[in-house]
Amino acid sequence: MGQRTHVCGELSEALTGSSVVLQGWVKKRRDLGQVIFIDLRDRSGQVQIVFNGEENPEALRIAEDVRSEYVIEVEGTVLERDEANVNPKISTGRIEVMISAIRVLNAAKGLPFVVEDTAELNEDVRLKYRYLDLRRPAMQETMKLRSRTTKLIRDFLDEQSFMEMETPMLTKSTPEGARDYLVPSRVHHGEFYALPQSPQLFKQLLMVSGFERYFQIARCFRDEDLRADRQPEFTQVDIEASFMPKEELLGMTEKMMQKLVSELRGVEVKAPFKRLTHREAMNRYGSDKPDTRFGMELTDVSDIVKDTDFKVFSGAVKSGGAVKGICVKAEAPNYSRKDLDELSSFAAIYGAKGLAWLKVDEAGALKGPIAKFFDEDKAQAIKDAFQAEPQDILLFAADKLQVVWDVLGALRTKFAKDLKLVEPGTFDFLWVTEFPLLSYDEEEGRYAAEHHPFTRPVREDEHLLTEAPEKVRAEAYDLVLNGYELGGGSQRIFERGLQEDMFAALGFSKEEAYEQFGFLLDAFEYGTPPHGGIALGLDRLVMILADRTNLRDTIAFPKTASAGCLLTNAPSPVEQAKLDELNLSVKEKQSAESKQG
Amino acid sequence: MGQRTHVCGELSEALTGSSVVLQGWVKKRRDLGQVIFIDLRDRSGQVQIVFNGEENPEALRIAEDVRSEYVIEVEGTVLERDEANVNPKISTGRIEVMISAIRVLNAAKGLPFVVEDTAELNEDVRLKYRYLDLRRPAMQETMKLRSRTTKLIRDFLDEQSFMEMETPMLTKSTPEGARDYLVPSRVHHGEFYALPQSPQLFKQLLMVSGFERYFQIARCFRDEDLRADRQPEFTQVDIEASFMPKEELLGMTEKMMQKLVSELRGVEVKAPFKRLTHREAMNRYGSDKPDTRFGMELTDVSDIVKDTDFKVFSGAVKSGGAVKGICVKAEAPNYSRKDLDELSSFAAIYGAKGLAWLKVDEAGALKGPIAKFFDEDKAQAIKDAFQAEPQDILLFAADKLQVVWDVLGALRTKFAKDLKLVEPGTFDFLWVTEFPLLSYDEEEGRYAAEHHPFTRPVREDEHLLTEAPEKVRAEAYDLVLNGYELGGGSQRIFERGLQEDMFAALGFSKEEAYEQFGFLLDAFEYGTPPHGGIALGLDRLVMILADRTNLRDTIAFPKTASAGCLLTNAPSPVEQAKLDELNLSVKEKQSAESKQG
Repeated sequence: MGQRTHVCGELSEALTGSSVVLQGWVKKRRDLGQVIFIDLRDRSGQVQIVFNGEENPEALRIAEDVRSEYVIEVEGTVLERDEANVNPKISTGRIEVMISAIRVLNAAKGLPFVVEDTAELNEDVRLKYRYLDLRRPAMQETMKLRSRTTKLIRDFLDEQSFMEMETPMLTKSTPEGARDYLVPSRVHHGEFYALPQSPQLFKQLLMVSGFERYFQIARCFRDEDLRADRQPEFTQVDIEASFMPKEELLGMTEKMMQKLVSELRGVEVKAPFKRLTHREAMNRYGSDKPDTRFGMELTDVSDIVKDTDFKVFSGAVKSGGAVKGICVKAEAPNYSRKDLDELSSFAAIYGAKGLAWLKVDEAGALKGPIAKFFDEDKAQAIKDAFQAEPQDILLFAADKLQVVWDVLGALRTKFAKDLKLVEPGTFDFLWVTEFPLLSYDEEEGRYAAEHHPFTRPVREDEHLLTEAPEKVRAEAYDLVLNGYELGGGSQRIFERGLQEDMFAALGFSKEEAYEQFGFLLDAFEYGTPPHGGIALGLDRLVMILADRTNLRDTIAFPKTASAGCLLTNAPSPVEQAKLDELNLSVKEKQSAESKQG
Repeated sequence: MGQRTHVCGELSEALTGSSVVLQGWVKKRRDLGQVIFIDLRDRSGQVQIVFNGEENPEALRIAEDVRSEYVIEVEGTVLERDEANVNPKISTGRIEVMISAIRVLNAAKGLPFVVEDTAELNEDVRLKYRYLDLRRPAMQETMKLRSRTTKLIRDFLDEQSFMEMETPMLTKSTPEGARDYLVPSRVHHGEFYALPQSPQLFKQLLMVSGFERYFQIARCFRDEDLRADRQPEFTQVDIEASFMPKEELLGMTEKMMQKLVSELRGVEVKAPFKRLTHREAMNRYGSDKPDTRFGMELTDVSDIVKDTDFKVFSGAVKSGGAVKGICVKAEAPNYSRKDLDELSSFAAIYGAKGLAWLKVDEAGALKGPIAKFFDEDKAQAIKDAFQAEPQDILLFAADKLQVVWDVLGALRTKFAKDLKLVEPGTFDFLWVTEFPLLSYDEEEGRYAAEHHPFTRPVREDEHLLTEAPEKVRAEAYDLVLNGYELGGGSQRIFERGLQEDMFAALGFSKEEAYEQFGFLLDAFEYGTPPHGGIALGLDRLVMILADRTNLRDTIAFPKTASAGCLLTNAPSPVEQAKLDELNLSVKEKQSAESKQG
């Protein structure tokens, strides 16, 4: 291999007449007989190279055998193109390179798909041939954007005196949170490590250690059944600071986001970001991560409909639920009765038993199967509540509050997408604050931490922790971007007593709490500074910054929905000898559809 | 909590008269009755704060109860100290802060040890209370140095157009290399992921993808029995580049090392670094990671002694081994016969059956139990070979070549340490090149890759791969610093045929090779660029840069020699329900000393 003198993308008229050595991939080849043109591609871009059979018959002969995605090395001279042949679409479009010598470094057989963004590909094929999929321009750009994102974050936090520190991957399994990935120990019989769901405990211990400003771009793991926007391993920007009041932490996070959006997308975002309390977010948008780039807020009509004859509505209110709706402006002519009835099955995903709707006709009258239940006064009151106008559609959910929120929150998002209510290229940040500290888990019959057990209660609610845990608000904040939860943070408990109360509220006995978290409780007695922090999902951040909708497109080697890798075939069976060393045996599968027989 | 206005370390005369709010830890407290002095510490340094009972009795009263490592917030005024009270040892020694108000943010009970470097501590105690151990100044400095090291590396590689990219942690177990940590899959019955021993395959696939310049500061895992300088999880600076000839990669690595040593230690290291072939390193130093900061090279006396009556020497040569020695200059008077005889047990660790020695007396005569075997000519020849002078000690190993190397290599290092032959603060870099590609594993009865199976053979040795595998030299290079292996790299195989030959040399059938590495073999057929890379052990690099000798001191939360965490008690037993989900059961322990009964 010779020594490359330039990368393709940096060639320009300034180099006219220069001799260059290039190395890269054959992107396209046009064979005109005595002249062959090749678009040569490398990491920096592409350039047109020319083989002329009269001047260099030997080079032309080799170029004749070259095909797409061959890796070649060429030597030649930079020439300016005739004005007529200038290609303004590429940065090197004013020049071409006349080739005197070519060497094939590695041949390529026919590819399973062309390396272009235009190719419509099944995702399984993309994942199996990920190394080719990643050659496609949009994937190259996304990976570059991801790399630039982490560099910008690191530089920003370094300027703020944060130290990047590493925490262990082989950690202790704890009973809280999602399901752990376990790692059997060979040395300690029958014992297991857990892969971290986050570096939470370690970053707090680093605060106890006095480092004051820690961050880490950390790999985290959750063994959960996957949804489209989850991966078994994911990356988070993990930040923790001592002696930093909440407002300072939020302000710093805002500056970091402003910098990212500005540098990567050229958009200037205003700060401070909007804020909503959790309660307000639910009431107005039916979501704790609302997309506030459009309106269509939830309107409560419980009071109006509670005494009507429509039992679905009045019954929901009487049994402690609510009736709320959204108003879809001016779309009545575009949605048939059938269209609207079909929304019921969408609503059912979110737990609704049905979805009621009304149209406002041209004359301002309410129309639809349930219109008959409302007399003129009620109809007017409903229209007033929604500020409804002719041709609007009103959609109602009547159920327990949580179901009403879930259904309407999801419907809002669906309509925004269907009706293209959102202007592309906007970055709408929002803080959601005052989350409940605990939520009651009906299945488990106990309270669970809404964020995690280390989140501080709001000072004035601390006394409620033992009496009325569900009323305690947390000193927690989620950062939302365009309707996605980017991440969450909180001020932490740093007093042993309060932390013990918290564990008690979660149903731990004193012994259980100490068994699991004794090292933290002990640490809190040796001079622990007030501290708080935030964790941001890097994969999701990159997804939004890159205008992508699939989380897997932001990860070089992602897993499928069943947590497999189609490229390497992980996970895979291992030899019995390896399991013997770990003192493990695999139990027979119970069900018939065993994968391994 | 109020808003801190300054950190301790930034206070100076320039702020005299200013009102400041500080937050930090009580480092030391001197109670003089009506006046109390406290050294307040935060991440930036320390400052003396003063409580005066006449001016602020309330503050003094609170300060009376404060103890070491309390976390406090204070408000006060910066005052210049009298010239007599200036403390030149600390940066804030010309000022003190007169306190008007104090608040205890978190109390501290008596610590298990004082937070000073001077404390001589059992390492188990340090690891159990790691969050306190990390408060000690030297640990703070080491962690800061580690963080600066990674920042400098990232900045350097970014300037060289390298992209940091993440590769999976849940990967496929492969039969090569060290023992994998396994992670059972819940979804795929009886199947396992492996934690990566390195991102080797993925970084090569990223080269196939055309990213050309990748790096990652990557966590890696090896389930090996631990030695003092190994950890089950460790961090490596992982670099891979396409179209970059070996010399360019080595040169770039040298620049990166120069930058680190210069910025972190103020030492300018010369480049290009020295180079030794593997063969030369073994012959001259008995080690593939020789410490070349001192001489004491190995001298071969096989030819001189092969016909003498000393059967240990002549026998070793006759059975295909060698007799080599080292010369310890001018130390004869300091080592008694007993001292030298005792070195035999040191040599035994490295496989030697004994260790022969000779002293050169003041008159130049050889002395010692074996001196009688050498007539005057032989004695002179031996002295000439070592350029021995009166009072020198000669130490000999006579055995198979590998044993001779191991023994004398270790002895060199031992004498260098005992005799303080090495000047502290020197950074002696060295490349060791032309490693053998394969070594014969007698236990397994087959060849194993010296580096890994993806390393290229030297071009002119390629034809030997099938005929005489042990003779093939690898296009591989190790970077050695002060006798430690910092890391290793190589040019990679990028042709399917050659890679298949390599797998065959390792004893894989064609089917086995495809089963394990089919995705890589396939990838090599779609236009793979020539590529190579290097991986550097970050923990070890930091250890040397920080003048430490214990690898654990460079890791915030390390594991013990039995791969446990004394702080969190990982690993630990998990509930049976969790194992049921994984379809696993733990087998009864065979031996009596079961930990779990």
